[in-house]
Amino acid sequence: MDVGIKAIGGYEEVGRNMTAIRIEDKIIIFDIGLYLDRVQVHEETRTEKMHSLDLIDIGAIPDDTVLNDMKGEIVGIVCSHGHLDHIGGLSKLAHRYEAPIVATPFTVKLIEKEIKSEEKFEVDNPVYTLETGRKYLLTPDIELEFVKAQHSIPDCAIPVLHTSEGSIMYTLDFKLDNNPVLGEKTDTDRLQEINQEENIIAAIMDSTRIKEEGRTPSESIAREMVWDTLHQANKEKGVFVTTFSSHVARIKSIVEAAKDMDRRPILIGRSMEKYVGTAEQMGIIDLPDNVGIFGTPRGREEILKKVNKNGKENYLIILTGHQGEPGSSLKRIADGTLPLEIDEGDQVIFSANVIPNPLTKANRYSLETKLEMQGARLFKDVHVSGHASRQDHYDILEMTEPEHVIPAHGGLDFASSYAELAENLGYTFGEDVHILRNGQELLLKS
Amino acid sequence: MDVGIKAIGGYEEVGRNMTAIRIEDKIIIFDIGLYLDRVQVHEETRTEKMHSLDLIDIGAIPDDTVLNDMKGEIVGIVCSHGHLDHIGGLSKLAHRYEAPIVATPFTVKLIEKEIKSEEKFEVDNPVYTLETGRKYLLTPDIELEFVKAQHSIPDCAIPVLHTSEGSIMYTLDFKLDNNPVLGEKTDTDRLQEINQEENIIAAIMDSTRIKEEGRTPSESIAREMVWDTLHQANKEKGVFVTTFSSHVARIKSIVEAAKDMDRRPILIGRSMEKYVGTAEQMGIIDLPDNVGIFGTPRGREEILKKVNKNGKENYLIILTGHQGEPGSSLKRIADGTLPLEIDEGDQVIFSANVIPNPLTKANRYSLETKLEMQGARLFKDVHVSGHASRQDHYDILEMTEPEHVIPAHGGLDFASSYAELAENLGYTFGEDVHILRNGQELLLKS
Amino acid sequence: MDVGIKAIGGYEEVGRNMTAIRIEDKIIIFDIGLYLDRVQVHEETRTEKMHSLDLIDIGAIPDDTVLNDMKGEIVGIVCSHGHLDHIGGLSKLAHRYEAPIVATPFTVKLIEKEIKSEEKFEVDNPVYTLETGRKYLLTPDIELEFVKAQHSIPDCAIPVLHTSEGSIMYTLDFKLDNNPVLGEKTDTDRLQEINQEENIIAAIMDSTRIKEEGRTPSESIAREMVWDTLHQANKEKGVFVTTFSSHVARIKSIVEAAKDMDRRPILIGRSMEKYVGTAEQMGIIDLPDNVGIFGTPRGREEILKKVNKNGKENYLIILTGHQGEPGSSLKRIADGTLPLEIDEGDQVIFSANVIPNPLTKANRYSLETKLEMQGARLFKDVHVSGHASRQDHYDILEMTEPEHVIPAHGGLDFASSYAELAENLGYTFGEDVHILRNGQELLLKS
Amino acid sequence: MDVGIKAIGGYEEVGRNMTAIRIEDKIIIFDIGLYLDRVQVHEETRTEKMHSLDLIDIGAIPDDTVLNDMKGEIVGIVCSHGHLDHIGGLSKLAHRYEAPIVATPFTVKLIEKEIKSEEKFEVDNPVYTLETGRKYLLTPDIELEFVKAQHSIPDCAIPVLHTSEGSIMYTLDFKLDNNPVLGEKTDTDRLQEINQEENIIAAIMDSTRIKEEGRTPSESIAREMVWDTLHQANKEKGVFVTTFSSHVARIKSIVEAAKDMDRRPILIGRSMEKYVGTAEQMGIIDLPDNVGIFGTPRGREEILKKVNKNGKENYLIILTGHQGEPGSSLKRIADGTLPLEIDEGDQVIFSANVIPNPLTKANRYSLETKLEMQGARLFKDVHVSGHASRQDHYDILEMTEPEHVIPAHGGLDFASSYAELAENLGYTFGEDVHILRNGQELLLKS
Repeated sequence: MDVGIKAIGGYEEVGRNMTAIRIEDKIIIFDIGLYLDRVQVHEETRTEKMHSLDLIDIGAIPDDTVLNDMKGEIVGIVCSHGHLDHIGGLSKLAHRYEAPIVATPFTVKLIEKEIKSEEKFEVDNPVYTLETGRKYLLTPDIELEFVKAQHSIPDCAIPVLHTSEGSIMYTLDFKLDNNPVLGEKTDTDRLQEINQEENIIAAIMDSTRIKEEGRTPSESIAREMVWDTLHQANKEKGVFVTTFSSHVARIKSIVEAAKDMDRRPILIGRSMEKYVGTAEQMGIIDLPDNVGIFGTPRGREEILKKVNKNGKENYLIILTGHQGEPGSSLKRIADGTLPLEIDEGDQVIFSANVIPNPLTKANRYSLETKLEMQGARLFKDVHVSGHASRQDHYDILEMTEPEHVIPAHGGLDFASSYAELAENLGYTFGEDVHILRNGQELLLKS
Repeated sequence: MDVGIKAIGGYEEVGRNMTAIRIEDKIIIFDIGLYLDRVQVHEETRTEKMHSLDLIDIGAIPDDTVLNDMKGEIVGIVCSHGHLDHIGGLSKLAHRYEAPIVATPFTVKLIEKEIKSEEKFEVDNPVYTLETGRKYLLTPDIELEFVKAQHSIPDCAIPVLHTSEGSIMYTLDFKLDNNPVLGEKTDTDRLQEINQEENIIAAIMDSTRIKEEGRTPSESIAREMVWDTLHQANKEKGVFVTTFSSHVARIKSIVEAAKDMDRRPILIGRSMEKYVGTAEQMGIIDLPDNVGIFGTPRGREEILKKVNKNGKENYLIILTGHQGEPGSSLKRIADGTLPLEIDEGDQVIFSANVIPNPLTKANRYSLETKLEMQGARLFKDVHVSGHASRQDHYDILEMTEPEHVIPAHGGLDFASSYAELAENLGYTFGEDVHILRNGQELLLKS
Repeated sequence: MDVGIKAIGGYEEVGRNMTAIRIEDKIIIFDIGLYLDRVQVHEETRTEKMHSLDLIDIGAIPDDTVLNDMKGEIVGIVCSHGHLDHIGGLSKLAHRYEAPIVATPFTVKLIEKEIKSEEKFEVDNPVYTLETGRKYLLTPDIELEFVKAQHSIPDCAIPVLHTSEGSIMYTLDFKLDNNPVLGEKTDTDRLQEINQEENIIAAIMDSTRIKEEGRTPSESIAREMVWDTLHQANKEKGVFVTTFSSHVARIKSIVEAAKDMDRRPILIGRSMEKYVGTAEQMGIIDLPDNVGIFGTPRGREEILKKVNKNGKENYLIILTGHQGEPGSSLKRIADGTLPLEIDEGDQVIFSANVIPNPLTKANRYSLETKLEMQGARLFKDVHVSGHASRQDHYDILEMTEPEHVIPAHGGLDFASSYAELAENLGYTFGEDVHILRNGQELLLKS
Repeated sequence: MDVGIKAIGGYEEVGRNMTAIRIEDKIIIFDIGLYLDRVQVHEETRTEKMHSLDLIDIGAIPDDTVLNDMKGEIVGIVCSHGHLDHIGGLSKLAHRYEAPIVATPFTVKLIEKEIKSEEKFEVDNPVYTLETGRKYLLTPDIELEFVKAQHSIPDCAIPVLHTSEGSIMYTLDFKLDNNPVLGEKTDTDRLQEINQEENIIAAIMDSTRIKEEGRTPSESIAREMVWDTLHQANKEKGVFVTTFSSHVARIKSIVEAAKDMDRRPILIGRSMEKYVGTAEQMGIIDLPDNVGIFGTPRGREEILKKVNKNGKENYLIILTGHQGEPGSSLKRIADGTLPLEIDEGDQVIFSANVIPNPLTKANRYSLETKLEMQGARLFKDVHVSGHASRQDHYDILEMTEPEHVIPAHGGLDFASSYAELAENLGYTFGEDVHILRNGQELLLKS
């Protein structure tokens, strides 16, 4: 069998992931993501209206023109989960391919929203839903399986392609979490089974946190940290929590803490509605009755007025803005453009890391400076990551024993570090652990 | 009332803590500690045989000659807990003062061991035991109370001096932990009560982690992290855990995890016996029957041979050496001078931070390099601190409202940072939040 | 004699310097500066139109309302040099005081420009010129002397107040440079003479770089570095150099290098004209005939078109934008909004450090990312500082032996570090080396 | 022509460099170095007595057993310069090969000393001297040329192998210095000529400082920095300068500064004699008559007594110990075991960087702590590097246009970074810029 693995995006950056895998003359695309950093650098806020070639030019979406020299029929576009670095380029590039988009139910909903908000292109590829734990026949010879995975958004999959000669595993993004807060554990039993039943020819691996030694703590540790911080909150002061709005498990923990604190949890911000609202509608999360989600500018305005009237101390305000994004709810409160003020001693909990990018750091700095000038107490980095760390990768490689390992999701420094780990497990650089650059293809014969 | 607070040690370094508080003509000394860094720099390993003046000269113990110009009678030497930076200088300096040593039961045991191992001086001060929650009349006018506190060693106290005019609080070291693993929470209710019933004239505060934003997580978070790491350990490989031998709560969590792993926990190293053995004898910790403690070189030798014979996979080996100390058990295993070898894939968990000192970093680097060359997998920093962080200090200052705040336990950079926090609560630099240098005295009239 | 030293601005930040010194009942103000960071955080670009109280509120200019409780007559506003953190608040606050502004000739020119561009207030204080090396009688009892100083802008002074009881030295900003490129050395002979002839009661010291060990290299080292980099520049490519437009000595070195390179030096940007143009008019710098300065948008437009036509390889383009400032010439070239493009292999030399502020780092990141995407080769930090380092301060304290030392120009961390240095020279914290916070006053009797 | 380039050492670390190049059936070895870090980690100070297999085992010297599977005749061992990471393994491994050692005159002297001090093996390979600028016929078909190079030790070469099909360039270590202090510039004219006259098939490149942006400053900048620091030294105090004893150019600058300071320069330490003494004997450096070199313990003892008697202020003491090495002269002075003491205000200049290794950092920390406790003023990092930086590599690649680039001298992170630079010049990762791991071989056909 003749296999080609083509790095399209995400092999020189953390963002705009895209990989094409050719098995004989059939091609499967994995993910078409966005690289937000490049959008920020180019100060373009209206990507919806931009042409794909311009976005490729500024490095914001994968340069899929490299696919031109890969001969074969594209039979599917498979998305592993709903983060923008995995689906954010779909609405710009998917229409170029006559192939269905396949994703898990929650991811499909998010993809549909992406496509709907697109203003430049009309994307009319069929979108198929495949639940985790299930399989789907892409071609008579290639079966796609979605193995359950934990990450920082609901309903993640590790897509595996089964062929007569063995399988190929697209392992981004995931974490090994023995005690998840929402959903089931990454199904390592199934991955081990695949390894035993058939050969794993190649694994594309998520190197985002390969430089973090040890293991990534369980999301249940984050829950404990959130509870610990909230439990001690001053009962007479305002308490704001900001986190990734797509991190539904985290929001579940925060909302549950609100009950213990005897405060009404309210969720504020457009993307809170997008992610949490969708998750609730789909039954992924079951919110208590007293939770309110206020996604529209008007709804936000009104609830904040009400909070102001009833007293902040009766609410747990969960809102967007953890990266200091201009226009986000927390930023606007700090700017003084919403009808709720920060008072001396109010607590602001950042249940998120700072994305390590100078532009984000600047946004956070402005936000934090303003909040502190208004008297807020800041609690930062009440958070654990959703990506596997170095020793988690050791384990997953030991369990799955792929013949070839291809690190993705990061530049040469991450890929190199991944290769060094693989060497500890007996792999040889350039022979069975491979570094690819955007546009390069690895050819495997078996 | 005329009060003098004299900084003797620990106001220009993290280590060798010592403070004298004069109330009218009576003086109470708090802590007499050791600054290990200076011992290391001077490559002296046999401090037991050294004279106090030499140790003062190299900066290893507090320069208590500054007490000469403080007029009054020394009525007590009070130790807050049993760490060496609080009691490690006692055996060198206490005999100069005709005053009893007062400490909690566990601390008293450790003090007695210090005194016994001293080879240069004979320390025969009476040593009194005072349980936390209890009071003791130092003079007719001064009552000492030990308020319960959580830190990273059992049986810690926040000593409070009650006088007719108000009280003085010596608040090092402590953490606010709502869910401790061993012992009770820091008794903030009692501290608030003291504030309400009488005036808190002054508080000496632990600034060690004042630059860490937010809160220090609960020790129960460390327990979760330890369990999380151990739970996933490869069942066929050796598992070593190294932690502070005085951190009995942590060792409790590790030992309990061993049961879940179906491995026999064994504790190896002289100081493991010193701290954990003592804690067990005193009923502070209740170890399962299958736990072995091997403190002597011979005992260590024999159990490791046994481990070797029965298979490492049947044991959870808890041992000294987390800072790479020469002569520690883990270091000697890495050096190949003990009858147990590291094999490919063995796991070594560091349930400790690296003490931020270049000499310690070098020791850790040597240890880690050797372990990794032998194939070990390292899991570092599976740990939470025992010191309060910035926002914890905000809370304790808000609860206790001391008239004067004196940061201790760190140099000018820590003290300055503490002063900035106090300013957020309304204190004024130089007026009611004071920075002292070793040897300086703050005079208060009330 | 009764002396009060009041910290108004610059004692909690690097920026908005302002100090008031009261001698008996006469008050002299030193500097009224701007804190650019706070302007950036608050996203206000039009400070010209803002009211002083609003600027005080956002922390951009010194809060001089603290002067209300200092009794005495204000007899002068003395500016040490022309940087904005020393004169940038004058146009907002000087009119509140019936006192003349006194500065060196070059500084006076810059102050006049500041006042002229102010749109909110009318500042009509008399402005007096005092050359370095000269004295001026502020009152019958107080004589002001401007001691020559080197820094990173022409015509700097260390103002010294002479009184019958001794003198007071306002030593910000300066460097000790034995081999300056422009102007004379900091006149340490004169400072030593003052120390010998009269008592130096107090010295306010520039702590900006107190944490930098050793000495600050001479500006002649920067000249060598610039020449070294330019000398090797590819003869067929564009060469851009960006530096502080007020750093006339640096620009002199760059312009002189152009001759050696056989390229025509052109200076582009509004502030290039402001600073370099002024310096040339005043005879501070003597530019070769072929140098062009293009300060207006139109002039810039035209010269860049000409460069484009004649070939970049014939020019050395010296321009604004070293901090990635929006609207600066280099930023606009990177953005593609000026009629000159970056080509593959063009060299961009940053003869400047990155100001350590997250907002500036973000601006530089955007600029550098764009330049590199266009193929530019970047040469960063071809620069030496204009502020004295730790060992320079050791020397100046040893030479001048002030009775009291007051670190300024930085927060508590800088002031603390300065105090530690002073301790090495025999000073005692809180006794003769003093830390002040904005608004605090030190009272000295002599 | 069939070419194999085998990475033996220095491709996973900075140290123990060794590369073998096979041209048809002839093999040339470049460098056999030592990795000092691994010696330190294993606390072995007597490498002279150790067996090569043990040194390979601890990672201290290259594992040349990988050469077993390279078929061909070894016709020469070529050393580029005399640093230990290039020649320090010769005395352990060279005797295994029946081939002459070829090096420049100064390097040969150092190699001879290495061989003489070896206690385990007898190395009797012939040692041939080849001056820079000259050629030597290794085989009828392979000519070796030594192109002049600047680095931080005298008499460096860039060895080039000329064959009928093109040449191969072994470009470690070097810097581009337009104004060297000693010797001639790196002969880039000759390198360009080689590129024009014949094909450069491959270049092995020094990636040590590839992550340093911009250019490495000229050694003349270091001379200026040294002079600047020394010129301002207090005339009544002791002045100590410590630097790399092999850095003869630097020592030249320091010695010349002594004249200007009117102090007698004395060089102290065994390795000072080894390197500087040798350089003087060979006429590489011409020291003034008043310079003394004291290499033996007894000579050191006596001169320091004399210094003590005559007054430190009359001497400029140049000595070993810049990395805080145990046993070095400066360390021993700080330890108080030599007959000269540090007094308050004495100046210690470190004309060296700190080697970025935790063990060295610990040594420096101990040294600096002791010096400062004794009152010394420290001037650190008065230094520029001897390795080319990123933009220097851009230039040399542009000049020489090698068909294949192989980064050496560092781990994957350095090699990756080098590959990214090469990509900017049009190279393609894995195609014509290659990352090798120790033991791997790159095969080229032409």
